[in-house]
Amino acid sequence: MSSAKSKKIHILDTTLRDGTQAEGVSLTVDDKLKITRKLDWLGFDYIEGGWPGSNPKDVEYFSLVGKEDLGTSRVTAFTSTRRKNTGVSEDAILGKVVEVSPQACCVFGKSWDLHVKTALGTTLKENLAMITDSVSYLREKGIEVIYDAEHFFDGYAANPEYALRTLEAAAAGGASFITLCETNGGALPHGIYSAVKDVAARIDVPLGIHAHNDSELAVANTLEAVRAGCVMVHGTVNGYGERCGNANLISIIANLQLKMGYECIPPDNMKRLTEVSRYIDEIANLVPDPRQPFVGNSAFAHKGGIHVSAIKKDSSTYEHISPEQVGNQRRILLSELAGASNIKLKSREFNLDLEKDTEKVSSILRKIKNLENSGYHYEGAEASFELLMRREAGNYRKFFDLEGFRVIIESEEDGTLRSEATIKVSVDGVREHTAADGDGPVNALDNALRKALEKFYPTLKDLSLTDFKVRVIDARQGTAAKVRVLIESRDPGSEWGTIGVSENIIEASWEALVDSIEYKLLREESSG
Amino acid sequence: MSSAKSKKIHILDTTLRDGTQAEGVSLTVDDKLKITRKLDWLGFDYIEGGWPGSNPKDVEYFSLVGKEDLGTSRVTAFTSTRRKNTGVSEDAILGKVVEVSPQACCVFGKSWDLHVKTALGTTLKENLAMITDSVSYLREKGIEVIYDAEHFFDGYAANPEYALRTLEAAAAGGASFITLCETNGGALPHGIYSAVKDVAARIDVPLGIHAHNDSELAVANTLEAVRAGCVMVHGTVNGYGERCGNANLISIIANLQLKMGYECIPPDNMKRLTEVSRYIDEIANLVPDPRQPFVGNSAFAHKGGIHVSAIKKDSSTYEHISPEQVGNQRRILLSELAGASNIKLKSREFNLDLEKDTEKVSSILRKIKNLENSGYHYEGAEASFELLMRREAGNYRKFFDLEGFRVIIESEEDGTLRSEATIKVSVDGVREHTAADGDGPVNALDNALRKALEKFYPTLKDLSLTDFKVRVIDARQGTAAKVRVLIESRDPGSEWGTIGVSENIIEASWEALVDSIEYKLLREESSG
Repeated sequence: MSSAKSKKIHILDTTLRDGTQAEGVSLTVDDKLKITRKLDWLGFDYIEGGWPGSNPKDVEYFSLVGKEDLGTSRVTAFTSTRRKNTGVSEDAILGKVVEVSPQACCVFGKSWDLHVKTALGTTLKENLAMITDSVSYLREKGIEVIYDAEHFFDGYAANPEYALRTLEAAAAGGASFITLCETNGGALPHGIYSAVKDVAARIDVPLGIHAHNDSELAVANTLEAVRAGCVMVHGTVNGYGERCGNANLISIIANLQLKMGYECIPPDNMKRLTEVSRYIDEIANLVPDPRQPFVGNSAFAHKGGIHVSAIKKDSSTYEHISPEQVGNQRRILLSELAGASNIKLKSREFNLDLEKDTEKVSSILRKIKNLENSGYHYEGAEASFELLMRREAGNYRKFFDLEGFRVIIESEEDGTLRSEATIKVSVDGVREHTAADGDGPVNALDNALRKALEKFYPTLKDLSLTDFKVRVIDARQGTAAKVRVLIESRDPGSEWGTIGVSENIIEASWEALVDSIEYKLLREESSG
Repeated sequence: MSSAKSKKIHILDTTLRDGTQAEGVSLTVDDKLKITRKLDWLGFDYIEGGWPGSNPKDVEYFSLVGKEDLGTSRVTAFTSTRRKNTGVSEDAILGKVVEVSPQACCVFGKSWDLHVKTALGTTLKENLAMITDSVSYLREKGIEVIYDAEHFFDGYAANPEYALRTLEAAAAGGASFITLCETNGGALPHGIYSAVKDVAARIDVPLGIHAHNDSELAVANTLEAVRAGCVMVHGTVNGYGERCGNANLISIIANLQLKMGYECIPPDNMKRLTEVSRYIDEIANLVPDPRQPFVGNSAFAHKGGIHVSAIKKDSSTYEHISPEQVGNQRRILLSELAGASNIKLKSREFNLDLEKDTEKVSSILRKIKNLENSGYHYEGAEASFELLMRREAGNYRKFFDLEGFRVIIESEEDGTLRSEATIKVSVDGVREHTAADGDGPVNALDNALRKALEKFYPTLKDLSLTDFKVRVIDARQGTAAKVRVLIESRDPGSEWGTIGVSENIIEASWEALVDSIEYKLLREESSG
């Protein structure tokens, strides 16, 4: 490992090109510019922004990105080789690339003899000429060229000699890197390792790897390719991409840089990985995967009682790296599997100082076990848990008293439904009786409650509910089943989750709503 | 590869034990029994059901699962070794295992000298005795023992000789398998390969591998361990588990069995993988990951224009396996052609004879696409789908007309909630206006609707609602989000599922309720 110390790995991000092939991912030009800036901030070497020959949106992107003042990243286009039997300077698709004048361009071509014949319908010789011509043409125009050998590993298995000759054709054209593409995502790590070893022994141009995750092996295949000699890695942030996605750069960079002695981005930027991952999910309008390695919200979350007590003694017992290294954080979860040590840790977090009050700790623990038996589940509802602990610990004041509410859902003559909530609350003896409509009964209640309380607590205007989950607990009871409602809330400073459980979905939602509001008021009071 | 042909790999599923350590996963005893039956149907060798020493729910599971008539799976408990410096027969936790008498038991112990000293606070020698004693004690009670060497790879790196001695201690106790656990999920594939090679040269007992996904390498680490000699694999369905999850058995089995020549489950069961994956997500109330390798809804979905036309010529151009091999299907996105053939197939199933009515088929298809865009999802709601097709096909009569309803949810003085529904329906011109209470608004509506209709259709007495699921579709809308309600119903003859979607949970539930009742009446009419 020490011989590879600090060896540079060139990162080519294709979130904006291959990543947008993912089902459900669609980025505007403005989204693409935002992501470009963020990836540059992280320190990627190449950002593949699109295929100017394929659609006008990508042409617009290149014209706008030229005005950006980027630091480390080279903006890169994508294109195919020239068409068969045409002069390279007359090729319309390559012409589009020259027009947008990117700093670099990935040119993809065929490595698999079968595809040359069936998909391109040309000769093996013409395919080699198409590769050399296209690469050298763009080089002459002052554009750096990275050659992408599509289906390389399948082609190499079918006809190794011809596959290698396609790479030599790219080298002859002046490619600065040659990328071996595992296009179908079906290869296994040990197969990748030995094929890359063979290629590295024959080809002098620096090699890259481009892997897909169809076998849940894209990260491993990439690491093995690097071990075998590749010095460039293609992938996408969070593994976006067609089918099961491209290789996930977040995990690849973390493994290469924290464990294998390579340098992909400036070391000080490693702690930006979590922020970049979540930012790009946000722009792409995708819910972040809590289980995502390194950067997910659950990646350093501990639930089992044994684990929690061990983590307290030494975090390396159940953590492979320290979460701060990638800008993430450790979380201790609450669950039926946990014991007194969790409660004590939490009380410290909440400044409740219960560590020595064994009796109170075990009364809280009993209360939680009872609540969990009746369907409560505090993992996603830390704020409700904190309120519960504070109420049990005895240092808690009520911010408002609920005197009653009523919700009416009624079908109008035209078949549409109207939902109205009326509510009576009092704050320090002042009663407020108000009503509101909503999209459904829970939304009506939410609106009525805020309307009543905003007079007393104007900062509630900043509170927004960002997530609302409903889980039926004992489904066999049919419509009389118990439901669990989880609500996530946010204000400009933070996010929190609350819970309610009842046979009545309105009551469960109400409980979670009230906790959310109380939690916000509590935090403001203690910080103010 | 041919030498490994059909070599048996023993699968131990720990979805019910390690999988429930995942944040957001909480299974009832009934859920666990359902999952057990499904995993047995798939053909797993061992199902680790829980830790009887840790909580009463797991004890209940073992007492109930004993009454199940399972085919291939051995139900397996989990436990630690005995405590230090105590007689093994007095150990309360091991005693719990004997009490529930599982067919097999995983016993976990320490391999890392540092942990023996710091976490256990005992001597290296006593730890070896704890391992041997615990294994042999359970063996004497007639229970097969699988020994789990926790933190094996870290322990082996720190003190290889001692780590190997812990395995020998388990072998001496009579363990049938010794599992090397990569507990922290930090190891790399090539490191796993060489460590397992070393161990296999020294230990005669068959070896297993237990990996976690903290580095996005759990599947690769497992495959490398098998290549190096492991014959048992631990993991969870869909990779549930603490932090970033356990090794995903779905991907592991698909790789080992379809690409590497091993046999994990009966070959005919491979096409059950997709169904099992989605079923377990459903039971755990998790949204299936569309990008999940092999079984995800997007795993064989093609979007890029080039890919789609190539796939039409030869599916192997962009698919590493054929989707049917794992029970999944290819999807061409944004193509209307795929749908029409499905509609025709369905119309035949429902005796609707639409095969030649191209216009009607495409109007149904358009309607379905619109509904799916607005959140409908007919996989679990075939009855609603049939009703939709019949309504569109024009041969459908209404069994009742709904003239209106109202639901009131009101807090009483003592804080409890009362839910009342009133409803007006007419059947063949006869109007019924009635009211009912319920446990929550949906139950009240359900009660009122049946009360009104049973006078006209007495067989509705046989109808029971067996399942009620709620999923929030666009959670970011907070309490104004759209919800999808799925209801499963049953009568003495059959079961069926219906769906409703709305911003208003009452309306969504109502829609699914009405479909359920109409479907029952329709079936009786056509059979009677």
